[in-house]
Amino acid sequence: MKILLDVMGGDNSPDELIKGAVDAIDDLESEVVLIGNENIIKEKLKEFYHKEKIEDINSRLHIKHASEVISNEESPTDALKHKKDSSMVVGFQMLKSGEGDVFVSAGSTGAFMAGGLLQVGRIKGIDRPALCPLLPTYDGKGFMLIDCGANTNCRPINLVQFAQMGSVYMQNVMKREQPKIGLLNIGAEEGKGNELMKETYEKLEEEKSIDFYGNIEGRYIFDGDVDVVVTDGFTGNITLKTIEGLGGIVNKMLKEELFRNLWTKFLAILVLPVLKRFKKRMDYTEYGGALLLGINKPMVKCHGSAKAKLVKITLKQAEEFAKNKVVETIKENFAKNKVEETVKENIDK
Amino acid sequence: MKILLDVMGGDNSPDELIKGAVDAIDDLESEVVLIGNENIIKEKLKEFYHKEKIEDINSRLHIKHASEVISNEESPTDALKHKKDSSMVVGFQMLKSGEGDVFVSAGSTGAFMAGGLLQVGRIKGIDRPALCPLLPTYDGKGFMLIDCGANTNCRPINLVQFAQMGSVYMQNVMKREQPKIGLLNIGAEEGKGNELMKETYEKLEEEKSIDFYGNIEGRYIFDGDVDVVVTDGFTGNITLKTIEGLGGIVNKMLKEELFRNLWTKFLAILVLPVLKRFKKRMDYTEYGGALLLGINKPMVKCHGSAKAKLVKITLKQAEEFAKNKVVETIKENFAKNKVEETVKENIDK
Repeated sequence: MKILLDVMGGDNSPDELIKGAVDAIDDLESEVVLIGNENIIKEKLKEFYHKEKIEDINSRLHIKHASEVISNEESPTDALKHKKDSSMVVGFQMLKSGEGDVFVSAGSTGAFMAGGLLQVGRIKGIDRPALCPLLPTYDGKGFMLIDCGANTNCRPINLVQFAQMGSVYMQNVMKREQPKIGLLNIGAEEGKGNELMKETYEKLEEEKSIDFYGNIEGRYIFDGDVDVVVTDGFTGNITLKTIEGLGGIVNKMLKEELFRNLWTKFLAILVLPVLKRFKKRMDYTEYGGALLLGINKPMVKCHGSAKAKLVKITLKQAEEFAKNKVVETIKENFAKNKVEETVKENIDK
Repeated sequence: MKILLDVMGGDNSPDELIKGAVDAIDDLESEVVLIGNENIIKEKLKEFYHKEKIEDINSRLHIKHASEVISNEESPTDALKHKKDSSMVVGFQMLKSGEGDVFVSAGSTGAFMAGGLLQVGRIKGIDRPALCPLLPTYDGKGFMLIDCGANTNCRPINLVQFAQMGSVYMQNVMKREQPKIGLLNIGAEEGKGNELMKETYEKLEEEKSIDFYGNIEGRYIFDGDVDVVVTDGFTGNITLKTIEGLGGIVNKMLKEELFRNLWTKFLAILVLPVLKRFKKRMDYTEYGGALLLGINKPMVKCHGSAKAKLVKITLKQAEEFAKNKVVETIKENFAKNKVEETVKENIDK
């Protein structure tokens, strides 16, 4: 199996991306293709590692040259059209043609989603692909939030498909036997929420391919009672970023209070192991990147500010994503749905 | 001035409500009317405080008997219709008739909002009242999130009115000279978000009565750059509850890691003052309750799980709300708007 890695995207490219790949290679069954400027990649590899090590890993670490880079500031569709030799577009083409099994990038989220949709293509039967990160729960298992920004205006059918795709991923990759699917809402009872959520609730309740938990309020999503939290891309994005924002000030304030004076600094050294364990439990990047589900091939969006450690985790996650045949299962399910619908339509006639 | 306090609502009623009022009375310029079962209130007052103290405070602490209680489980509209002698309905009637200047309750949020709308009444010109808590920021100033659940399906005009009302409150009570109003959205640029937010953005930009900051992402709302974060009640409620949920597991995990073994327990004792300062900065209840803006009289929803300390803070907040003439200013502004609109319409003709 081959993992395609765009090493030119993200805040810390290419150094942390390349470091992450080298660190990961021993733990991976797959080979990794580093996509980007060949000279820079070769130089960086030399800079970071002893010669023997390079030759060691060279057999499973490959380089694919790409001369351009898509930045976060560019219009995604313009960039995709005009930068044909960018690391991201080259990645899409290799993924589509089968030169790789899964594509990982820390570059522009907009370009990544647009390229997935336009250059790699949707799974037949899926109206809207979805971007879905895994977030921490109190019990450490984590949950999937789907969708987080690929779709700002959704219809109930989109949310039902998010539920189905999320369920397949959590079952195949995270090995949850019967993933529980919750609908993010402002109250637990049926009939709560805006029109979209009311209609979606009814459809999810009828849907036999998933285990519907019912509505779930924002305050309970971290409890571990559900495996997948379904919502539209607007609400999901606001929720995700609020979590990131609050997580950020928690860290900042805790640090500030601990470094307030000499005595607290001394205490900080003592409690460091405790705080590290706490931080690890809270850290959503421990779960890897955000999956782009609904695309014909596995794609993982690595966090833009990812350092080598997170790149390594994301590469492992990408391998599991491809190995456990999530895309194939979703394809089969939706093909089956379609057959069932056709049979039903024929019977109705 | 008189603050009306429903002492029968909330998880810790009536004890913590009564305690809170007694604790607050010395810091208040106002008198407080405790609304609820007279016998119970008298008994509790005796139970908690020395006789001398009671007589001392009796001159400014009054009791208004109400024989019934509205629970969280009841349908708000049914309860309001059938429990005419409930502490909440008695509170609404006293507020409306001018027997009190501001009403505080920790009871059912649904009944509180419905009663405000149906029994106390809207400000002329306001289409939808809004429920708005104050939340912590990194710099300790706090921001208002409006709306948090009074309105699940909003139109742009509602959000513009939320912005105007929030601006008046932050200016009059929180003494922010020119409150900055942000629109909660999935990106900073104009044109981001769902249809509601795109249209609202345009209207807010045209609105001269407020200082529009532009879109603000969830991850930046805690930074203190804006004083008011405007959103629809669905998104606001999800955001608020996600903050509550994440805050909850942060506390729980931190405690758990600190009580893991004897050594960490020993450390916990040492770092307790540090953690207390951290918790105080993170604690949104330090800012009081949620305001119900757009109603003809000041109303404050105290947190359902409030203890005496929070009740005391909320009473102080209620006093400031009434004293600083927020409702009057909103009324004037909307009357003025109306006049301007009528003049404009006449000119157009």
